[in-house]
Amino acid sequence: MYAMDTFQYKYQRAATRVTILAHLFGVLAIVLMLVWLLHYRGGLDLDSDNPYLIFNVHPFLMFFGFIFMAGQAMMAYKTVRAGRTEQKLAHAFFHSVALCLGIVGLHAVFKFHDKRNISNLDSLHSWIGITTFSLFCLQWLFGITVFLFPGGSDYARTRASPWHVSGGRALLYMAICTALTGLMEKVTFLGLQHHREARLINFLGFAILIFGITVDISVVLSRYI
Amino acid sequence: MYAMDTFQYKYQRAATRVTILAHLFGVLAIVLMLVWLLHYRGGLDLDSDNPYLIFNVHPFLMFFGFIFMAGQAMMAYKTVRAGRTEQKLAHAFFHSVALCLGIVGLHAVFKFHDKRNISNLDSLHSWIGITTFSLFCLQWLFGITVFLFPGGSDYARTRASPWHVSGGRALLYMAICTALTGLMEKVTFLGLQHHREARLINFLGFAILIFGITVDISVVLSRYI
Repeated sequence: MYAMDTFQYKYQRAATRVTILAHLFGVLAIVLMLVWLLHYRGGLDLDSDNPYLIFNVHPFLMFFGFIFMAGQAMMAYKTVRAGRTEQKLAHAFFHSVALCLGIVGLHAVFKFHDKRNISNLDSLHSWIGITTFSLFCLQWLFGITVFLFPGGSDYARTRASPWHVSGGRALLYMAICTALTGLMEKVTFLGLQHHREARLINFLGFAILIFGITVDISVVLSRYI
Repeated sequence: MYAMDTFQYKYQRAATRVTILAHLFGVLAIVLMLVWLLHYRGGLDLDSDNPYLIFNVHPFLMFFGFIFMAGQAMMAYKTVRAGRTEQKLAHAFFHSVALCLGIVGLHAVFKFHDKRNISNLDSLHSWIGITTFSLFCLQWLFGITVFLFPGGSDYARTRASPWHVSGGRALLYMAICTALTGLMEKVTFLGLQHHREARLINFLGFAILIFGITVDISVVLSRYI
């Protein structure tokens, strides 16, 4: 009666558009991040003697390495035009890249804290961040075990799928919250509130937020199809 | 083959449990917020001569008045044990309460800024916050017009429903991001990083985050049923 086929077609078109938007805002966030770190913060270098250049690796890798790559993994079922198996492998591959680069990004901030004798894991940002990353590792192990191991039962996969998807989406939002609290902490700590740099960081935060929302909507719309 | 009835029953049970969890964490967040504002920050009073007591109305009303009430509205289809019409009215009622108390909460922070001669809408927190609240107002108007006005067409409602739900969930996460960046800004600005108060605020932030996630999962699971 409600012409469901028309709906499905519209969702499919909407999903494609939202996925393109997600890529635009993701790339915008990477560009704004690099402008911020290279122009205002002196660049990034994990092996530098300057602890601030070591620190700068942290925001870059936690967004580009972790959040952006995990977003690519989440959208792989929409973006990878191949069979289901290839899509699953792309999903696992991007998440594995996110895991590795995320570890390097976390290493950078711990190294910075050590060099500057700052205690670790004090702030709300770090609490949410470390929880998100730990749960991400569990979700990754869970995903590999249930969905990728040959011989996993179809019954277990069907049962686990909604939890895997809901959990992944919750983790995406937790990662976005972590990124935004991190930027907020940095701006306030540096006392930049009325500087041009703060406005750049606000736009960066917004781009990250819209990336998160569009990735999420892309996943939801793809599931309606 | 996969015994979908068993799945549906399990989702229903899981949805009930997650909804209870959402209430527990919501109430925990309200309690922690009140301990923070009353014990550490001198209380809250919109008509005070002390601008800081005026400010304190802002975090309280933006969580208890806006986010918590909007969460109740989102879960009304699960928590209100009555007909569909009563559930819809409860959904609209809670969202209207959230709208009104949110406006008072916003008024409090603008009044504080005026009294202290601080410029408005400079921070990432305020940018995300004002965007979220504006979109919430549009979503409220849209909801009233499409779903509540007698004579709204079923076709329009079926077509608008996924956008209304997805949009609402995205707004919930934006509101959570706003709350967490606000807490992060306050702790860093006050230089509380190593104080006991900061740890209380971290727990408060975590409770707000878990409230948001559980409300969202409750809505998703209810839709799987």
